Amino acid sequence: MTLALPLMTALATAQSDIQTTLDTLLSPFDGPVAEAMRYAVSGGKRLRGFLVLETAALFDVPRGRALRVAAAIEAIHAYSLIHDDLPCMDDDDLRRGQPTVHRKWDEATAVLAGDALQTFAFEVLADPATDSDPGLRADLVLTLAQASGAAGMVRGQALDIAAETAQTPLTLGQITELQRQKTGRLLEWPCRAGAILGRADPAPLLAYAAELGLAFQIADDLLDVTGDAETVGKAVGKDADAGKATFVSILGVDAARARAEDLVKSAQGAILPYGHRAATLAQIAEYVVTRDK
Amino acid sequence: MTLALPLMTALATAQSDIQTTLDTLLSPFDGPVAEAMRYAVSGGKRLRGFLVLETAALFDVPRGRALRVAAAIEAIHAYSLIHDDLPCMDDDDLRRGQPTVHRKWDEATAVLAGDALQTFAFEVLADPATDSDPGLRADLVLTLAQASGAAGMVRGQALDIAAETAQTPLTLGQITELQRQKTGRLLEWPCRAGAILGRADPAPLLAYAAELGLAFQIADDLLDVTGDAETVGKAVGKDADAGKATFVSILGVDAARARAEDLVKSAQGAILPYGHRAATLAQIAEYVVTRDK
Repeated sequence: MTLALPLMTALATAQSDIQTTLDTLLSPFDGPVAEAMRYAVSGGKRLRGFLVLETAALFDVPRGRALRVAAAIEAIHAYSLIHDDLPCMDDDDLRRGQPTVHRKWDEATAVLAGDALQTFAFEVLADPATDSDPGLRADLVLTLAQASGAAGMVRGQALDIAAETAQTPLTLGQITELQRQKTGRLLEWPCRAGAILGRADPAPLLAYAAELGLAFQIADDLLDVTGDAETVGKAVGKDADAGKATFVSILGVDAARARAEDLVKSAQGAILPYGHRAATLAQIAEYVVTRDK
Repeated sequence: MTLALPLMTALATAQSDIQTTLDTLLSPFDGPVAEAMRYAVSGGKRLRGFLVLETAALFDVPRGRALRVAAAIEAIHAYSLIHDDLPCMDDDDLRRGQPTVHRKWDEATAVLAGDALQTFAFEVLADPATDSDPGLRADLVLTLAQASGAAGMVRGQALDIAAETAQTPLTLGQITELQRQKTGRLLEWPCRAGAILGRADPAPLLAYAAELGLAFQIADDLLDVTGDAETVGKAVGKDADAGKATFVSILGVDAARARAEDLVKSAQGAILPYGHRAATLAQIAEYVVTRDK
């Protein structure tokens, strides 16, 4: 499957704009922890930030506001990766093809940089520069906290850790629930945020995000089996080495790929109400399962 | 110096009310990370939460609202202690007389419980139940993020870590700056929050908090030298063992104690405009330097 050129152009522009926004917003901070924060938010696909930009654009939200929200979700994503990579968690040496924060600095700096990136995300959202309506800002903070906290992403991470030492491998239902929390909630939030910024009904975008999130995770599991470490930018084959149950270990490569493609079609169906304005979002769904990193 | 009985009664009531509030707010969460979160927010002096209650009471803020804000700052405090106690940071086994979170569970649970407690604090503040005015909620989120992030508490922690490996010991000016960030900002915020909840000018309370924060840290340094580990509830003598420059190592015990008492008087002077309504706040300042844990 080849990807539409417009998508790659839009994504490259988004990546550049989000990086500029993060650089500007992080520039007041100094010291080694701030350096590690800047390092950790560099690069990456910017899929979550791109989803904010594209969903907000459906409702003609000024791009400058959407970019601040995109920066916030990328900061939360980066914080989760820094802490996830720590020796006591996944113990990864490589992230986006570069040494992880605790390898480049040390564990203390990694803990603090992750902590401060989380705080930074809420600071950016609560700032009047994000939107003149304080109710909208409070709503962004509240929903991001719900998506990322002890009933959201952190819950998914805890389930993932518990699964590693469990006596019996997870069932497909349990994996789906785990991934919905661990990965899905932070892919759903950008779509919700676009609707919040646009004062619009979030329902179609949330339906899109639910299918997209699951497709994303199946693609991640496939990359761990079929991907190339250098291209992916992190270690591969880790799930099988750890004897971890994944969509791929249960369904097999072909059925997992077919399931991911079905999910892409459902995601695209959910945004039909927006017509051709949602063309890029439809392409993102395809990108999520065809990406090679 | 003996402490006024009314203070101890008010503090005990605050401790109990804050605990009840935290129990209620944390009850929806389940699993080992949620258990660790509840464990970490149990006990403690509740000084930061008590400051919210007492400053908010100056402006007749309903206690139920102030209690939610008190719970939020205690959650941030608990998160900072969990991460500070990690092996890669201070490597402490004991906190409030109990095993630290990573000793009772493991490091991964400690990282995640700290992460989720930070998120929880912002979730509580942004929730409409805290105040019907979204501008006030956004203001609480913004100021707490500023106080605890990369330009606040985390910056102080980073300076503290850097000091441990520095070639030359810190000067008194550098220690004052470090402690103002590391400890002072989270003692200042509750006073600011009381004024925000009360729609009042924060200036007198911020002046009070600045003196109080420094007095608190000098008292902490004194406890590390003169305190008893069992009473204090954590290891003592750690600063001297680490060859760390503190107020006490530079000034000596007697001069440090005198300096702390001067700061108490300045703190009490700052809240004279509130008259007898601030009697408990005046007593808190004394308590901060006479406490034995």
